[in-house]
Amino acid sequence: MTFADKLSEAIRKNDSLVCVGLDPDPRLMPEGITVFDFNRAIIDATADLVCAYKLNLAFYEALGDEGMDALKRTARHIPAGILSIGDAKRGDIGNTAKAYAQAVFSILGFDATTVNPYLGFDSVEPFLQYKDKGVFILCRTSNAGAIDFQALRCETERGMRPLFQVVADKAEKWNTIGNIGLVVGATYPEELKLIRDEHPNLPLLIPGIGAQGGELSLAVRYGVNADGEGAIINSSRQIIYASRGKDFAQAAEKAARTLRDQINQHRAHSTSH
Amino acid sequence: MTFADKLSEAIRKNDSLVCVGLDPDPRLMPEGITVFDFNRAIIDATADLVCAYKLNLAFYEALGDEGMDALKRTARHIPAGILSIGDAKRGDIGNTAKAYAQAVFSILGFDATTVNPYLGFDSVEPFLQYKDKGVFILCRTSNAGAIDFQALRCETERGMRPLFQVVADKAEKWNTIGNIGLVVGATYPEELKLIRDEHPNLPLLIPGIGAQGGELSLAVRYGVNADGEGAIINSSRQIIYASRGKDFAQAAEKAARTLRDQINQHRAHSTSH
Repeated sequence: MTFADKLSEAIRKNDSLVCVGLDPDPRLMPEGITVFDFNRAIIDATADLVCAYKLNLAFYEALGDEGMDALKRTARHIPAGILSIGDAKRGDIGNTAKAYAQAVFSILGFDATTVNPYLGFDSVEPFLQYKDKGVFILCRTSNAGAIDFQALRCETERGMRPLFQVVADKAEKWNTIGNIGLVVGATYPEELKLIRDEHPNLPLLIPGIGAQGGELSLAVRYGVNADGEGAIINSSRQIIYASRGKDFAQAAEKAARTLRDQINQHRAHSTSH
Repeated sequence: MTFADKLSEAIRKNDSLVCVGLDPDPRLMPEGITVFDFNRAIIDATADLVCAYKLNLAFYEALGDEGMDALKRTARHIPAGILSIGDAKRGDIGNTAKAYAQAVFSILGFDATTVNPYLGFDSVEPFLQYKDKGVFILCRTSNAGAIDFQALRCETERGMRPLFQVVADKAEKWNTIGNIGLVVGATYPEELKLIRDEHPNLPLLIPGIGAQGGELSLAVRYGVNADGEGAIINSSRQIIYASRGKDFAQAAEKAARTLRDQINQHRAHSTSH
């Protein structure tokens, strides 16, 4: 099964574009719980409401051995049919990129990952070799600093274009077997619209709603493809820290359900026009 | 002690610009040896010939638990006065970058790291908060794909400039406490010269000599600052796999000594003109 098929199936399974970001921060978790137990409870409570879980490796690496152990165990606990995304944003020269691809896909077993394009094609290509895995290339990230370089206007064959569009153009060109997607932040809705208009078929991983301030209605309207699919909308803190008490899993379930339903209302609007 | 001072001291300690890249590949190591034992033997044999060791995290992550264990133990085994560089090339949004900085500086304890600039200032800033640690920003990488984006000509206040020069300009601006350096590959000597001419004081981490084909004499001539310092020249395979037999540590010692002496001959030439 190709990655594009896996993504469609995952979205249809729970009629959901929601991706829950499992970014552990012990200061926000109920006292005394381990990271894995926290993640497991969140997954068990939300697995019929989402299309994907995204684990940002930074938060696990920052916790040392316990974190790395929780990372592996959490990745394995994600049910079949729901995508596991290792948000690693790796980027290195060919030989080394191959080692990173092995780490994220073979050792950790994720279905998809994020990669940084700055080092060019040979830094992305080893990830693409895993034909049934998804590779989301950073295009326009959700942070304020995104404008420092991603917004620079560059000379291209198609005239002057911002760097993030040049990255998207290259990603489209590299996407020969259909396993590439793009990361585009909900905090830049106009840029999201541009990318979706120019790349109607590329899956988009969209962070930045909720705590970061991205407007959900625009993320959905501009992010989905013509079928109202092709977009994975990530929410981390808003779901997993919906309650910091013992009812955190129930609160997460409720927050995930609310988000799924809100998104589906916006999807209905988008595709009915 | 600032990072700039640490780097000067490390270079003067052994009169060496050599950085040994400890990139474990069990297929190239003597049979049956553990990654940590291999690294320890290399370090013990070369510690009076180098200014730094660089561990690329990819190769350790690709080896799973044994790799992660070797990474931590190797970082701790590097003697005081010699820089330990965690070549992680991380780049993520502020909150997450903070977690990566914690992982590489606090958990793993490296003296310096590499970061990817694509996400802009707020992705670099959390690393800079560690005032005595070094932050080498990827500028012009050593691989073929470097031209895909890094060579794009961009609109700037100073006219049209290639992206890698824009990155260097920003790095210079962000370097308020003197803990920033740049990664510039020896495989692009003209670009290395440009960067050194425009940024006489930024430390440069220079990969790409040896197996990757960068010319050593140019890497030294263009890479060093006015004092014949400020450059860290990395060699991995040429040193650590100089022999694949039981004499690997002796062979590494010999290769490191040869490289140091060749570099110092070129340094003498560069600064005598």
